[in-house]
Amino acid sequence: MSEVLILGTVALDTIQTPFGKAENALGGSASYASFSASFFTQPSIVSVIGKDFPEEYLDLLKDRKINLDNIKIEDKTFRWSGSYEFDMNEAKTHSTELNSLATFKPEVNEELKNARYIFLANIDPDIQNSIIEQVKNPQLIVMDTMNFWIDSKKEPLLNVIKKVDVFILNEGEARQLFDTPNLVTAANKALELGPKTVIIKKGEHGAIMFMDNKHFNAPGFPLETVKDPTGAGDTFGGAITGYLAKTKDHSEQNFRKAIVYGSVLASFNAEDFSLNNLSKISQEDIEERFNQMKDIREF
Amino acid sequence: MSEVLILGTVALDTIQTPFGKAENALGGSASYASFSASFFTQPSIVSVIGKDFPEEYLDLLKDRKINLDNIKIEDKTFRWSGSYEFDMNEAKTHSTELNSLATFKPEVNEELKNARYIFLANIDPDIQNSIIEQVKNPQLIVMDTMNFWIDSKKEPLLNVIKKVDVFILNEGEARQLFDTPNLVTAANKALELGPKTVIIKKGEHGAIMFMDNKHFNAPGFPLETVKDPTGAGDTFGGAITGYLAKTKDHSEQNFRKAIVYGSVLASFNAEDFSLNNLSKISQEDIEERFNQMKDIREF
Repeated sequence: MSEVLILGTVALDTIQTPFGKAENALGGSASYASFSASFFTQPSIVSVIGKDFPEEYLDLLKDRKINLDNIKIEDKTFRWSGSYEFDMNEAKTHSTELNSLATFKPEVNEELKNARYIFLANIDPDIQNSIIEQVKNPQLIVMDTMNFWIDSKKEPLLNVIKKVDVFILNEGEARQLFDTPNLVTAANKALELGPKTVIIKKGEHGAIMFMDNKHFNAPGFPLETVKDPTGAGDTFGGAITGYLAKTKDHSEQNFRKAIVYGSVLASFNAEDFSLNNLSKISQEDIEERFNQMKDIREF
Repeated sequence: MSEVLILGTVALDTIQTPFGKAENALGGSASYASFSASFFTQPSIVSVIGKDFPEEYLDLLKDRKINLDNIKIEDKTFRWSGSYEFDMNEAKTHSTELNSLATFKPEVNEELKNARYIFLANIDPDIQNSIIEQVKNPQLIVMDTMNFWIDSKKEPLLNVIKKVDVFILNEGEARQLFDTPNLVTAANKALELGPKTVIIKKGEHGAIMFMDNKHFNAPGFPLETVKDPTGAGDTFGGAITGYLAKTKDHSEQNFRKAIVYGSVLASFNAEDFSLNNLSKISQEDIEERFNQMKDIREF
Protein backbone atom coordinates (compact mmCIF):
# COMPACT_ATOMS: atom_id res chain seq x y z
CA MET A 1 0.00 0.00 0.00
CA SER A 2 1.08 3.55 -0.64
CA GLU A 3 2.22 5.48 2.40
CA VAL A 4 2.34 8.84 0.70
CA LEU A 5 -0.73 10.74 -0.42
CA ILE A 6 -0.32 13.65 -2.80
CA LEU A 7 -3.37 15.83 -3.35
CA GLY A 8 -3.37 18.38 -6.15
CA THR A 9 -4.27 19.08 -9.74
CA VAL A 10 -3.50 17.00 -12.81
CA ALA A 11 -3.73 19.37 -15.73
CA LEU A 12 -3.13 20.06 -19.38
CA ASP A 13 -0.89 23.12 -19.64
CA THR A 14 -0.17 25.39 -22.57
CA ILE A 15 2.90 27.48 -21.81
CA GLN A 16 4.89 30.07 -23.71
CA THR A 17 8.31 31.22 -22.50
CA PRO A 18 11.05 33.19 -24.30
CA PHE A 19 12.65 29.78 -24.93
CA GLY A 20 9.78 27.87 -26.51
CA LYS A 21 6.23 26.65 -26.22
CA ALA A 22 4.42 23.57 -24.93
CA GLU A 23 0.81 22.76 -25.88
CA ASN A 24 -1.49 20.61 -23.78
CA ALA A 25 1.52 19.33 -21.87
CA LEU A 26 1.24 17.25 -18.71
CA GLY A 27 1.00 19.69 -15.82
CA GLY A 28 -0.72 20.30 -12.50
CA SER A 29 0.58 20.45 -8.94
CA ALA A 30 0.01 16.74 -8.20
CA SER A 31 1.74 15.62 -11.41
CA TYR A 32 4.92 17.57 -10.65
CA ALA A 33 4.86 16.75 -6.92
CA SER A 34 4.28 13.02 -7.33
CA PHE A 35 6.83 12.68 -10.11
CA SER A 36 9.40 14.37 -7.91
CA ALA A 37 8.43 12.33 -4.83
CA SER A 38 8.71 9.12 -6.87
CA PHE A 39 12.51 9.40 -6.75
CA PHE A 40 12.26 8.65 -3.01
CA THR A 41 9.00 6.73 -2.47
CA GLN A 42 5.87 5.44 -4.24
CA PRO A 43 3.20 8.10 -3.87
CA SER A 44 -0.53 7.96 -4.62
CA ILE A 45 -2.20 10.87 -6.36
CA VAL A 46 -5.61 12.16 -5.27
CA SER A 47 -7.03 14.25 -8.10
CA VAL A 48 -9.51 14.43 -10.97
CA ILE A 49 -9.07 14.36 -14.75
CA GLY A 50 -11.39 14.16 -17.76
CA LYS A 51 -11.98 11.61 -20.49
CA ASP A 52 -9.87 13.85 -22.72
CA PHE A 53 -6.73 13.12 -20.68
CA PRO A 54 -4.05 11.45 -22.85
CA GLU A 55 -3.29 7.82 -22.00
CA GLU A 56 0.43 8.44 -22.57
CA TYR A 57 0.53 10.90 -19.68
CA LEU A 58 -1.01 8.31 -17.36
CA ASP A 59 1.63 5.85 -18.58
CA LEU A 60 4.39 8.35 -17.79
CA LEU A 61 3.15 8.51 -14.17
CA LYS A 62 2.63 4.74 -13.94
CA ASP A 63 6.16 4.14 -15.20
CA ARG A 64 7.39 5.93 -12.07
CA LYS A 65 5.23 3.55 -9.97
CA ILE A 66 2.88 6.36 -8.98
CA ASN A 67 -0.46 4.97 -7.84
CA LEU A 68 -3.38 6.46 -9.79
CA ASP A 69 -6.31 4.58 -8.12
CA ASN A 70 -7.50 7.78 -6.45
CA ILE A 71 -7.70 9.85 -9.60
CA LYS A 72 -11.36 10.33 -10.55
CA ILE A 73 -12.22 10.45 -14.23
CA GLU A 74 -14.98 12.87 -15.14
CA ASP A 75 -15.84 14.90 -18.22
CA LYS A 76 -13.00 17.29 -19.03
CA THR A 77 -9.50 17.86 -17.63
CA PHE A 78 -8.50 21.11 -15.91
CA ARG A 79 -6.59 23.30 -18.38
CA TRP A 80 -4.24 26.18 -17.70
CA SER A 81 -2.53 28.44 -20.15
CA GLY A 82 0.14 31.00 -19.29
CA SER A 83 3.35 32.65 -20.28
CA TYR A 84 6.58 33.99 -18.82
CA GLU A 85 8.29 37.22 -19.74
CA PHE A 86 11.99 37.87 -20.14
CA ASP A 87 12.80 37.62 -16.42
CA MET A 88 11.02 34.23 -16.01
CA ASN A 89 9.98 35.14 -12.51
CA GLU A 90 6.23 35.08 -12.57
CA ALA A 91 3.72 33.30 -14.78
CA LYS A 92 1.06 35.41 -16.45
CA THR A 93 -2.15 33.39 -16.64
CA HIS A 94 -3.91 33.60 -20.01
CA SER A 95 -6.79 31.25 -19.31
CA THR A 96 -8.02 28.78 -16.72
CA GLU A 97 -10.67 26.16 -17.51
CA LEU A 98 -11.54 24.45 -14.25
CA ASN A 99 -13.74 21.81 -15.91
CA SER A 100 -13.91 18.67 -13.71
CA LEU A 101 -12.02 20.53 -10.96
CA ALA A 102 -14.94 22.90 -10.40
CA THR A 103 -17.03 20.29 -8.59
CA PHE A 104 -14.26 18.00 -7.39
CA LYS A 105 -14.89 16.38 -4.00
CA PRO A 106 -12.11 13.90 -3.29
CA GLU A 107 -12.98 10.52 -1.79
CA VAL A 108 -9.94 8.65 -0.60
CA ASN A 109 -10.14 4.84 -0.83
CA GLU A 110 -9.85 2.63 2.26
CA GLU A 111 -6.18 1.89 1.64
CA LEU A 112 -5.17 5.52 1.32
CA LYS A 113 -7.03 6.47 4.51
CA ASN A 114 -4.02 4.88 6.19
CA ALA A 115 -1.50 7.12 4.43
CA ARG A 116 1.28 8.29 6.77
CA TYR A 117 2.66 11.21 4.77
CA ILE A 118 0.44 13.77 3.08
CA PHE A 119 1.41 16.51 0.67
CA LEU A 120 -1.45 18.93 0.09
CA ALA A 121 -0.15 20.53 -3.08
CA ASN A 122 -1.68 23.71 -4.45
CA ILE A 123 -5.47 23.35 -4.81
CA ASP A 124 -8.62 24.83 -3.20
CA PRO A 125 -8.12 24.88 0.60
CA ASP A 126 -11.55 23.31 1.12
CA ILE A 127 -10.36 20.29 -0.85
CA GLN A 128 -7.13 20.24 1.17
CA ASN A 129 -9.20 20.24 4.36
CA SER A 130 -11.35 17.36 3.20
CA ILE A 131 -8.22 15.19 2.84
CA ILE A 132 -7.11 16.02 6.38
CA GLU A 133 -10.53 14.87 7.56
CA GLN A 134 -10.41 11.59 5.65
CA VAL A 135 -6.94 10.33 6.56
CA LYS A 136 -6.94 8.54 9.92
CA ASN A 137 -3.52 8.91 11.46
CA PRO A 138 -1.01 10.82 9.36
CA GLN A 139 2.57 11.18 10.62
CA LEU A 140 3.28 14.36 8.74
CA ILE A 141 1.14 16.79 6.75
CA VAL A 142 2.90 19.16 4.37
CA MET A 143 0.97 21.87 2.54
CA ASP A 144 1.57 24.35 -0.25
CA THR A 145 -0.71 27.10 -1.59
CA MET A 146 -0.72 30.06 -3.97
CA ASN A 147 -1.68 33.75 -4.00
CA PHE A 148 -5.00 32.96 -5.72
CA TRP A 149 -6.27 31.29 -2.50
CA ILE A 150 -4.93 34.08 -0.30
CA ASP A 151 -7.06 36.48 -2.35
CA SER A 152 -10.18 34.38 -2.68
CA LYS A 153 -10.32 31.97 0.28
CA LYS A 154 -8.21 33.39 3.05
CA GLU A 155 -10.26 32.02 5.99
CA PRO A 156 -10.47 28.41 4.77
CA LEU A 157 -6.76 28.65 3.92
CA LEU A 158 -5.82 29.82 7.44
CA ASN A 159 -7.94 26.97 8.81
CA VAL A 160 -5.88 24.41 6.86
CA ILE A 161 -2.55 26.02 7.85
CA LYS A 162 -3.52 25.52 11.51
CA LYS A 163 -3.82 21.76 10.98
CA VAL A 164 -0.58 21.01 9.15
CA ASP A 165 2.96 20.25 10.30
CA VAL A 166 4.83 21.88 7.47
CA PHE A 167 3.70 25.00 5.60
CA ILE A 168 5.40 25.87 2.31
CA LEU A 169 4.79 29.16 0.51
CA ASN A 170 6.75 31.53 -1.69
CA GLU A 171 8.18 34.88 -0.61
CA GLY A 172 5.52 37.00 -2.35
CA GLU A 173 2.76 34.93 -0.73
CA ALA A 174 4.45 35.18 2.68
CA ARG A 175 4.58 38.97 2.43
CA GLN A 176 0.98 39.12 1.23
CA LEU A 177 -0.55 36.68 3.72
CA PHE A 178 1.14 38.20 6.77
CA ASP A 179 1.21 41.81 5.56
CA THR A 180 4.91 42.42 6.13
CA PRO A 181 7.89 42.94 3.81
CA ASN A 182 10.10 41.02 6.21
CA LEU A 183 10.37 37.25 5.66
CA VAL A 184 11.56 36.51 9.20
CA THR A 185 8.51 38.31 10.59
CA ALA A 186 6.24 36.50 8.13
CA ALA A 187 7.69 33.12 9.07
CA ASN A 188 7.22 33.82 12.79
CA LYS A 189 3.58 34.74 12.18
CA ALA A 190 3.10 31.53 10.21
CA LEU A 191 4.64 29.47 13.02
CA GLU A 192 2.24 31.08 15.49
CA LEU A 193 -0.66 29.60 13.52
CA GLY A 194 0.43 26.07 14.34
CA PRO A 195 2.88 24.48 11.88
CA LYS A 196 6.18 23.36 13.42
CA THR A 197 8.03 24.07 10.20
CA VAL A 198 7.69 26.94 7.75
CA ILE A 199 9.51 26.91 4.43
CA ILE A 200 9.62 30.02 2.25
CA LYS A 201 10.49 29.43 -1.40
CA LYS A 202 12.55 32.13 -3.11
CA GLY A 203 12.72 30.84 -6.70
CA GLU A 204 16.26 30.97 -8.08
CA HIS A 205 17.48 32.22 -4.69
CA GLY A 206 16.60 28.91 -2.99
CA ALA A 207 14.53 28.63 0.16
CA ILE A 208 14.62 29.38 3.86
CA MET A 209 13.28 27.16 6.62
CA PHE A 210 12.22 28.10 10.15
CA MET A 211 11.96 25.24 12.66
CA ASP A 212 12.90 24.57 16.31
CA ASN A 213 13.98 28.23 16.69
CA LYS A 214 16.53 27.63 13.97
CA HIS A 215 16.92 29.06 10.54
CA PHE A 216 18.17 27.20 7.49
CA ASN A 217 19.17 28.88 4.27
CA ALA A 218 19.12 26.60 1.20
CA PRO A 219 20.66 27.88 -2.02
CA GLY A 220 19.09 27.62 -5.43
CA PHE A 221 21.16 25.68 -7.92
CA PRO A 222 22.81 28.11 -10.38
CA LEU A 223 21.24 27.27 -13.74
CA GLU A 224 22.40 28.62 -17.06
CA THR A 225 19.33 27.23 -18.83
CA VAL A 226 15.90 27.95 -17.41
CA LYS A 227 13.35 27.00 -20.05
CA ASP A 228 10.19 26.80 -17.97
CA PRO A 229 9.84 27.26 -14.21
CA THR A 230 6.26 25.93 -14.15
CA GLY A 231 5.88 23.31 -11.44
CA ALA A 232 9.18 24.10 -9.71
CA GLY A 233 7.41 24.78 -6.41
CA ASP A 234 5.34 21.58 -6.67
CA THR A 235 8.47 19.61 -7.52
CA PHE A 236 10.18 21.14 -4.49
CA GLY A 237 7.36 20.17 -2.11
CA GLY A 238 7.02 16.69 -3.60
CA ALA A 239 10.71 15.93 -3.12
CA ILE A 240 10.65 17.18 0.47
CA THR A 241 7.65 15.00 1.33
CA GLY A 242 9.08 12.00 -0.54
CA TYR A 243 12.47 12.28 1.13
CA LEU A 244 10.95 12.60 4.62
CA ALA A 245 8.67 9.61 3.94
CA LYS A 246 11.67 7.57 2.80
CA THR A 247 13.89 8.46 5.77
CA LYS A 248 11.16 8.76 8.45
CA ASP A 249 13.39 11.20 10.30
CA HIS A 250 11.68 14.48 11.18
CA SER A 251 14.67 16.15 12.85
CA GLU A 252 15.63 19.67 11.88
CA GLN A 253 18.87 18.26 10.48
CA ASN A 254 17.04 15.87 8.17
CA PHE A 255 14.59 18.56 7.09
CA ARG A 256 17.64 20.51 5.85
CA LYS A 257 18.62 17.58 3.62
CA ALA A 258 15.02 17.25 2.43
CA ILE A 259 14.97 20.91 1.37
CA VAL A 260 18.23 20.60 -0.53
CA TYR A 261 16.78 17.59 -2.39
CA GLY A 262 13.75 19.79 -3.05
CA SER A 263 15.99 22.49 -4.55
CA VAL A 264 17.85 19.90 -6.63
CA LEU A 265 14.66 18.42 -8.11
CA ALA A 266 13.18 21.88 -8.74
CA SER A 267 16.34 22.91 -10.59
CA PHE A 268 16.17 19.88 -12.90
CA ASN A 269 12.51 20.62 -13.52
CA ALA A 270 13.15 24.21 -14.66
CA GLU A 271 15.64 23.11 -17.32
CA ASP A 272 12.88 21.96 -19.68
CA PHE A 273 9.12 22.15 -20.26
CA SER A 274 6.57 19.99 -18.43
CA LEU A 275 8.06 16.80 -16.96
CA ASN A 276 10.47 16.44 -19.89
CA ASN A 277 13.66 16.75 -17.89
CA LEU A 278 12.45 14.97 -14.74
CA SER A 279 11.60 12.00 -17.02
CA LYS A 280 15.22 11.84 -18.15
CA ILE A 281 17.24 12.20 -14.96
CA SER A 282 18.60 9.34 -12.88
CA GLN A 283 19.12 8.83 -9.17
CA GLU A 284 22.83 9.43 -9.82
CA ASP A 285 22.14 12.81 -11.41
CA ILE A 286 20.23 13.79 -8.27
CA GLU A 287 23.02 12.70 -5.93
CA GLU A 288 25.62 14.49 -8.05
CA ARG A 289 23.74 17.78 -7.94
CA PHE A 290 23.07 17.33 -4.21
CA ASN A 291 26.84 17.15 -3.69
CA GLN A 292 27.40 20.18 -5.92
CA MET A 293 25.03 22.05 -3.60
CA LYS A 294 27.50 21.39 -0.80
CA ASP A 295 30.44 22.60 -2.89
CA ILE A 296 28.89 25.92 -3.84
CA ARG A 297 28.33 26.97 -0.24
CA GLU A 298 31.34 25.70 1.71
CA PHE A 299 33.45 28.42 3.31
CA MET B 1 51.31 54.19 5.28
CA SER B 2 47.91 53.03 4.23
CA GLU B 3 47.85 50.00 1.99
CA VAL B 4 44.19 50.24 1.11
CA LEU B 5 42.73 52.96 -1.08
CA ILE B 6 38.99 53.45 -1.13
CA LEU B 7 37.62 55.77 -3.79
CA GLY B 8 34.01 56.89 -3.62
CA THR B 9 31.62 59.55 -2.45
CA VAL B 10 31.34 61.11 1.00
CA ALA B 11 27.86 62.53 1.21
CA LEU B 12 25.10 64.01 3.29
CA ASP B 13 22.03 61.79 2.93
CA THR B 14 18.40 62.49 3.73
CA ILE B 15 16.51 59.21 3.82
CA GLN B 16 12.92 58.23 4.55
CA THR B 17 11.96 54.58 5.12
CA PRO B 18 8.78 53.06 6.60
CA PHE B 19 10.76 52.83 9.84
CA GLY B 20 12.01 56.38 10.25
CA LYS B 21 13.91 59.26 8.78
CA ALA B 22 17.49 60.55 8.77
CA GLU B 23 18.39 64.11 7.74
CA ASN B 24 21.82 65.14 6.46
CA ALA B 25 23.24 61.90 7.79
CA LEU B 26 26.73 60.70 6.99
CA GLY B 27 26.51 58.75 3.75
CA GLY B 28 28.29 58.08 0.47
CA SER B 29 29.91 54.97 -0.95
CA ALA B 30 33.40 55.71 0.43
CA SER B 31 32.08 56.40 3.95
CA TYR B 32 30.27 53.07 4.17
CA ALA B 33 33.04 51.11 2.42
CA SER B 34 35.89 52.52 4.50
CA PHE B 35 34.02 52.18 7.78
CA SER B 36 33.36 48.53 6.95
CA ALA B 37 36.95 47.92 5.78
CA SER B 38 38.25 49.49 9.00
CA PHE B 39 37.29 46.34 10.92
CA PHE B 40 40.05 44.54 9.00
CA THR B 41 42.58 47.18 7.95
CA GLN B 42 43.31 50.94 7.97
CA PRO B 43 42.00 52.33 4.70
CA SER B 44 42.51 55.75 3.10
CA ILE B 45 39.59 57.53 1.51
CA VAL B 46 39.94 59.35 -1.81
CA SER B 47 36.99 61.72 -2.17
CA VAL B 48 35.76 65.30 -2.01
CA ILE B 49 33.56 67.15 0.49
CA GLY B 50 32.53 70.78 1.06
CA LYS B 51 33.13 73.30 3.80
CA ASP B 52 29.60 72.47 5.02
CA PHE B 53 30.66 68.96 6.03
CA PRO B 54 30.18 68.40 9.79
CA GLU B 55 33.36 67.99 11.82
CA GLU B 56 31.73 65.26 13.92
CA TYR B 57 31.39 63.05 10.84
CA LEU B 58 35.08 63.41 10.11
CA ASP B 59 35.77 62.50 13.73
CA LEU B 60 33.63 59.38 13.39
CA LEU B 61 35.82 58.24 10.49
CA LYS B 62 39.06 59.24 12.24
CA ASP B 63 38.05 57.27 15.32
CA ARG B 64 38.12 54.14 13.14
CA LYS B 65 41.67 55.10 12.05
CA ILE B 66 40.54 55.86 8.52
CA ASN B 67 43.04 58.12 6.77
CA LEU B 68 41.41 61.29 5.39
CA ASP B 69 44.48 62.99 3.86
CA ASN B 70 43.16 62.37 0.35
CA ILE B 71 39.77 63.95 0.88
CA LYS B 72 39.65 67.31 -0.91
CA ILE B 73 37.67 70.10 0.68
CA GLU B 74 35.83 72.34 -1.74
CA ASP B 75 32.68 74.42 -1.61
CA LYS B 76 29.67 72.18 -0.91
CA THR B 77 29.26 68.48 -0.10
CA PHE B 78 27.43 66.07 -2.40
CA ARG B 79 23.88 65.56 -1.14
CA TRP B 80 21.46 62.74 -1.88
CA SER B 81 17.88 62.37 -0.79
CA GLY B 82 15.77 59.27 -1.26
CA SER B 83 13.18 56.96 0.19
CA TYR B 84 12.23 53.30 0.39
CA GLU B 85 8.77 51.85 0.03
CA PHE B 86 7.22 49.01 1.97
CA ASP B 87 9.35 46.29 0.40
CA MET B 88 12.66 48.11 1.13
CA ASN B 89 14.14 46.74 -2.06
CA GLU B 90 15.00 49.77 -4.12
CA ALA B 91 15.72 53.38 -3.21
CA LYS B 92 13.69 56.05 -4.98
CA THR B 93 15.89 59.10 -5.51
CA HIS B 94 14.18 62.40 -4.64
CA SER B 95 17.07 64.73 -5.33
CA THR B 96 20.79 64.68 -6.10
CA GLU B 97 23.00 67.75 -5.64
CA LEU B 98 26.41 66.88 -7.04
CA ASN B 99 28.05 70.09 -5.77
CA SER B 100 31.81 69.53 -5.35
CA LEU B 101 31.49 66.10 -6.96
CA ALA B 102 30.56 67.66 -10.32
CA THR B 103 34.12 68.77 -11.05
CA PHE B 104 36.03 66.31 -8.85
CA LYS B 105 39.36 65.14 -10.26
CA PRO B 106 41.13 63.04 -7.65
CA GLU B 107 44.84 63.48 -7.09
CA VAL B 108 46.34 60.77 -4.97
CA ASN B 109 49.28 61.77 -2.76
CA GLU B 110 52.71 60.17 -3.14
CA GLU B 111 52.14 57.77 -0.26
CA LEU B 112 48.86 56.46 -1.61
CA LYS B 113 50.32 55.92 -5.07
CA ASN B 114 51.88 52.87 -3.44
CA ALA B 115 48.55 51.44 -2.25
CA ARG B 116 48.33 47.67 -2.75
CA TYR B 117 44.57 47.18 -2.48
CA ILE B 118 42.07 49.42 -4.22
CA PHE B 119 38.31 49.52 -3.85
CA LEU B 120 36.69 51.66 -6.52
CA ALA B 121 33.33 52.15 -4.84
CA ASN B 122 30.38 53.55 -6.75
CA ILE B 123 31.31 56.83 -8.47
CA ASP B 124 31.75 58.13 -12.07
CA PRO B 125 33.76 55.50 -14.04
CA ASP B 126 36.07 58.24 -15.40
CA ILE B 127 37.07 59.01 -11.82
CA GLN B 128 37.54 55.29 -11.13
CA ASN B 129 39.81 55.10 -14.18
CA SER B 130 41.92 58.04 -13.05
CA ILE B 131 42.73 56.16 -9.81
CA ILE B 132 43.84 53.08 -11.74
CA GLU B 133 46.20 55.33 -13.71
CA GLN B 134 47.67 56.95 -10.58
CA VAL B 135 48.42 53.91 -8.45
CA LYS B 136 51.73 52.31 -9.39
CA ASN B 137 51.57 48.64 -8.58
CA PRO B 138 48.29 47.50 -7.01
CA GLN B 139 47.92 43.86 -5.96
CA LEU B 140 44.16 43.78 -6.28
CA ILE B 141 41.61 46.18 -7.73
CA VAL B 142 37.98 45.69 -6.70
CA MET B 143 35.21 47.76 -8.28
CA ASP B 144 31.53 48.42 -7.75
CA THR B 145 29.11 50.47 -9.86
CA MET B 146 25.41 51.28 -10.18
CA ASN B 147 22.68 51.35 -12.83
CA PHE B 148 23.08 55.13 -13.26
CA TRP B 149 26.52 54.61 -14.88
CA ILE B 150 25.26 51.74 -17.04
CA ASP B 151 22.66 54.13 -18.42
CA SER B 152 24.81 57.21 -18.78
CA LYS B 153 28.44 56.09 -19.19
CA LYS B 154 28.45 52.53 -20.47
CA GLU B 155 31.65 52.72 -22.55
CA PRO B 156 33.87 54.30 -19.85
CA LEU B 157 32.36 51.79 -17.40
CA LEU B 158 33.23 48.79 -19.62
CA ASN B 159 36.72 50.23 -19.98
CA VAL B 160 37.19 50.21 -16.17
CA ILE B 161 35.74 46.70 -15.80
CA LYS B 162 38.43 45.44 -18.21
CA LYS B 163 41.18 46.72 -15.91
CA VAL B 164 40.01 45.34 -12.54
CA ASP B 165 40.49 42.01 -10.78
CA VAL B 166 37.15 41.85 -8.99
CA PHE B 167 33.90 43.23 -10.35
CA ILE B 168 30.95 43.60 -7.96
CA LEU B 169 27.44 44.50 -9.16
CA ASN B 170 23.89 43.75 -8.14
CA GLU B 171 21.54 41.36 -9.90
CA GLY B 172 19.46 44.05 -11.61
CA GLU B 173 22.61 45.71 -12.92
CA ALA B 174 23.99 42.36 -14.10
CA ARG B 175 20.82 41.67 -16.08
CA GLN B 176 20.82 45.19 -17.51
CA LEU B 177 24.50 45.43 -18.42
CA PHE B 178 24.66 42.03 -20.13
CA ASP B 179 21.10 41.99 -21.47
CA THR B 180 20.12 38.59 -20.06
CA PRO B 181 17.73 37.47 -17.30
CA ASN B 182 20.13 34.69 -16.35
CA LEU B 183 22.74 35.52 -13.71
CA VAL B 184 25.09 32.68 -14.67
CA THR B 185 25.13 33.96 -18.25
CA ALA B 186 25.65 37.54 -17.05
CA ALA B 187 28.55 36.49 -14.82
CA ASN B 188 30.20 34.59 -17.67
CA LYS B 189 29.94 37.64 -19.91
CA ALA B 190 31.47 39.79 -17.16
CA LEU B 191 34.36 37.34 -16.74
CA GLU B 192 35.03 37.51 -20.49
CA LEU B 193 35.71 41.23 -20.13
CA GLY B 194 38.73 40.56 -17.94
CA PRO B 195 38.06 40.36 -14.18
CA LYS B 196 39.09 37.07 -12.60
CA THR B 197 36.28 37.32 -10.06
CA VAL B 198 32.69 38.44 -10.48
CA ILE B 199 30.43 38.92 -7.48
CA ILE B 200 26.70 39.49 -7.94
CA LYS B 201 24.89 41.03 -4.97
CA LYS B 202 21.31 39.84 -4.37
CA GLY B 203 20.27 42.04 -1.45
CA GLU B 204 18.61 40.00 1.31
CA HIS B 205 19.27 36.83 -0.71
CA GLY B 206 23.04 37.18 -0.28
CA ALA B 207 25.52 37.06 -3.14
CA ILE B 208 27.02 34.72 -5.69
CA MET B 209 30.64 34.62 -6.79
CA PHE B 210 32.13 33.25 -9.99
CA MET B 211 35.89 32.56 -9.96
CA ASP B 212 38.28 29.83 -11.20
CA ASN B 213 35.37 28.05 -12.92
CA LYS B 214 33.74 27.70 -9.52
CA HIS B 215 30.56 29.09 -8.12
CA PHE B 216 30.01 30.20 -4.54
CA ASN B 217 26.62 30.95 -3.05
CA ALA B 218 26.71 33.21 0.03
CA PRO B 219 23.51 33.60 2.06
CA GLY B 220 22.12 36.86 3.30
CA PHE B 221 21.78 37.04 7.06
CA PRO B 222 18.11 36.68 8.06
CA LEU B 223 17.20 40.03 9.61
CA GLU B 224 14.00 40.78 11.43
CA THR B 225 14.78 44.50 11.54
CA VAL B 226 15.75 46.26 8.34
CA LYS B 227 15.57 49.99 8.99
CA ASP B 228 17.60 51.34 6.09
CA PRO B 229 19.46 49.34 3.43
CA THR B 230 21.35 52.41 2.13
CA GLY B 231 25.05 51.65 1.86
CA ALA B 232 24.68 47.88 2.25
CA GLY B 233 26.40 47.26 -1.08
CA ASP B 234 29.25 49.66 -0.26
CA THR B 235 29.63 48.05 3.16
CA PHE B 236 29.77 44.64 1.46
CA GLY B 237 32.52 45.68 -0.97
CA GLY B 238 34.49 47.49 1.74
CA ALA B 239 34.55 44.43 3.98
CA ILE B 240 35.63 42.17 1.11
CA THR B 241 38.51 44.48 0.18
CA GLY B 242 39.49 44.99 3.82
CA TYR B 243 39.48 41.28 4.60
CA LEU B 244 41.55 40.42 1.51
CA ALA B 245 44.03 43.20 2.35
CA LYS B 246 44.33 41.86 5.88
CA THR B 247 44.81 38.22 4.89
CA LYS B 248 46.69 38.78 1.59
CA ASP B 249 45.34 35.46 0.36
CA HIS B 250 43.62 35.70 -3.02
CA SER B 251 42.60 32.04 -3.27
CA GLU B 252 39.03 31.16 -4.20
CA GLN B 253 38.64 29.67 -0.73
CA ASN B 254 39.63 32.91 0.98
CA PHE B 255 37.42 34.96 -1.33
CA ARG B 256 34.50 32.88 -0.01
CA LYS B 257 35.34 33.95 3.55
CA ALA B 258 35.72 37.56 2.40
CA ILE B 259 32.23 37.49 0.87
CA VAL B 260 30.66 36.07 4.01
CA TYR B 261 32.30 38.87 6.02
CA GLY B 262 30.86 41.25 3.43
CA SER B 263 27.38 39.81 4.01
CA VAL B 264 27.84 40.02 7.77
CA LEU B 265 28.86 43.70 7.71
CA ALA B 266 26.10 44.57 5.23
CA SER B 267 23.53 42.94 7.51
CA PHE B 268 24.66 44.99 10.52
CA ASN B 269 24.52 48.12 8.38
CA ALA B 270 20.89 47.56 7.34
CA GLU B 271 19.71 47.35 10.94
CA ASP B 272 19.89 51.12 11.42
CA PHE B 273 20.24 54.40 9.52
CA SER B 274 23.55 55.77 8.25
CA LEU B 275 26.58 54.36 10.09
CA ASN B 276 24.68 54.22 13.39
CA ASN B 277 24.87 50.47 13.82
CA LEU B 278 28.33 49.95 12.34
CA SER B 279 29.56 52.51 14.91
CA LYS B 280 28.26 50.30 17.70
CA ILE B 281 29.35 46.80 16.78
CA SER B 282 32.51 45.07 17.98
CA GLN B 283 34.89 42.59 16.38
CA GLU B 284 33.22 39.92 18.52
CA ASP B 285 29.78 40.75 17.10
CA ILE B 286 31.22 40.26 13.63
CA GLU B 287 32.78 36.90 14.46
CA GLU B 288 29.59 35.71 16.14
CA ARG B 289 27.48 36.51 13.10
CA PHE B 290 30.10 34.97 10.80
CA ASN B 291 29.71 31.72 12.73
CA GLN B 292 25.92 31.97 12.60
CA MET B 293 26.27 32.18 8.82
CA LYS B 294 27.84 28.72 8.95
CA ASP B 295 25.06 27.35 11.14
CA ILE B 296 22.23 28.50 8.90
CA ARG B 297 23.57 26.67 5.86
CA GLU B 298 25.01 23.41 7.16
CA PHE B 299 23.27 20.28 5.85
